[in-house]
Amino acid sequence: MKLYNLDASGNCYKVRLFAALANIDLELTTVDIPNGAHKKPPLIDLNPLGQVPVLQDGKLALRDSQAILVYLAGSYGGLAWWPAHPQGQAEIVQWLSFAANEVQHSLCAARLVQKFGYPLDQAAALDKSPAVLSVLDSHLAEHDWLALGRPTIADCAVYPYVVLAPEGGVDLQPYPHIARWFERLEALPGYLPKP
Amino acid sequence: MKLYNLDASGNCYKVRLFAALANIDLELTTVDIPNGAHKKPPLIDLNPLGQVPVLQDGKLALRDSQAILVYLAGSYGGLAWWPAHPQGQAEIVQWLSFAANEVQHSLCAARLVQKFGYPLDQAAALDKSPAVLSVLDSHLAEHDWLALGRPTIADCAVYPYVVLAPEGGVDLQPYPHIARWFERLEALPGYLPKP
Repeated sequence: MKLYNLDASGNCYKVRLFAALANIDLELTTVDIPNGAHKKPPLIDLNPLGQVPVLQDGKLALRDSQAILVYLAGSYGGLAWWPAHPQGQAEIVQWLSFAANEVQHSLCAARLVQKFGYPLDQAAALDKSPAVLSVLDSHLAEHDWLALGRPTIADCAVYPYVVLAPEGGVDLQPYPHIARWFERLEALPGYLPKP
Repeated sequence: MKLYNLDASGNCYKVRLFAALANIDLELTTVDIPNGAHKKPPLIDLNPLGQVPVLQDGKLALRDSQAILVYLAGSYGGLAWWPAHPQGQAEIVQWLSFAANEVQHSLCAARLVQKFGYPLDQAAALDKSPAVLSVLDSHLAEHDWLALGRPTIADCAVYPYVVLAPEGGVDLQPYPHIARWFERLEALPGYLPKP
C-alpha cells in the first residue's frame, strides 16, 4: 500500500501513527507540496481536493485521513481499533468529525499560519482553540481514551494536531487530562513520535 | 428515539432526511436555540459542544450529524445505506468528512451569517464555496450518487447544506450535475423536503 505523504502534515501523521500502532506496512511517497505537486497529476486525479494524505491500495484510492483510518483499521487493523457494531462506530465517528471540523479549524489552522505561512485567520483559529481543548480535557477527565474505553482510531485522528498545537502558538499547560492522555498514548507499543 | 432538533438547521435536516428515507421513527424535540437552550442542561450535558442535533436512544446519547447517520443507518437502516465492509464505509467517510469540514466551513458558514447573523467571516466562506461545489459537481458528472453507486448516508450528509446554499448567497446555477443529483435524491421514496 502506498501513502502519499508529507512528514510535517498532521493529517498524514494520523495515518502513519495508526499504521505504526497496528503494525501495518505503508510505502511512503513524499509529495512535493512546496512545488505544488498536490495540485497536479497524478495527485489531483487521486484527490480532487488537492490534499495529502492519499492512500492507494491496489485499484482503490482514498483521500481524507479519517476515511483512510476507517479503511486501514477495518481491513487490516482488527476490531479493537474500529468495531463492527454501529454504536461503537458512531461513538468513534463523533471524534472523527471533531478532528475534521473543530480541531482542523482551530489548532491545525493556527499551526498552518504560524509554521507554514498559510493565509488563514490566525486570530480566529486561536480564539476557537481553548473551547476545543476544554471539551477534550473534560472528556479525558472521565475517560482514559476518546471512545469505547480503549485506544481506537478516534485517538489517532485527534492526537496529532493536539500534540502539535504548541507549534501554532497554543498553550497546552491548562489541560492536565490531555497531558495524561498523551502519556497513555505515547506508551502504546509501536507508538510513532510526532514529526 | 428522541432527536433534539432545530428545523432550520441543515445538520438536523441531515438526520430528519435520512430517517424519512429509511423509514425510521424519530420523536422530535425542538431546542430553543435563540434562548441558548443548547448551551444549558440538559443539552450541554448530552453534547459539550453545545450544538444540535443530539440523538438519544435509550441510554445512548450521540452528538454530530455524521455520527448519528452512521448509528441510525447501521442500527435501523439496513446495509444499503451503510455497508459492513470497510472499503465501502471508508468511501462514505470521505464524504462525511467533506460535510463536516469543507461544506460546513463554506456553504453552511455563509448561510449562518446571511440567514442567522452569526459572527463568522462571510467573505472567506463565500470564497471557498465555488471550489467545494466544483469538486462535488465534477464527481457527480461521473457518478449518480456520492458513494457505492447508490444512495447512502454520504448523500444525506452532503445534500442539505448544498441545497440550502442559495440562502447563504451562493449561486448553484453553474453546477448542472449537482442539479441532476438533487432531482434523483428528491425522487427517492420518503424524501423529506428541505426546511
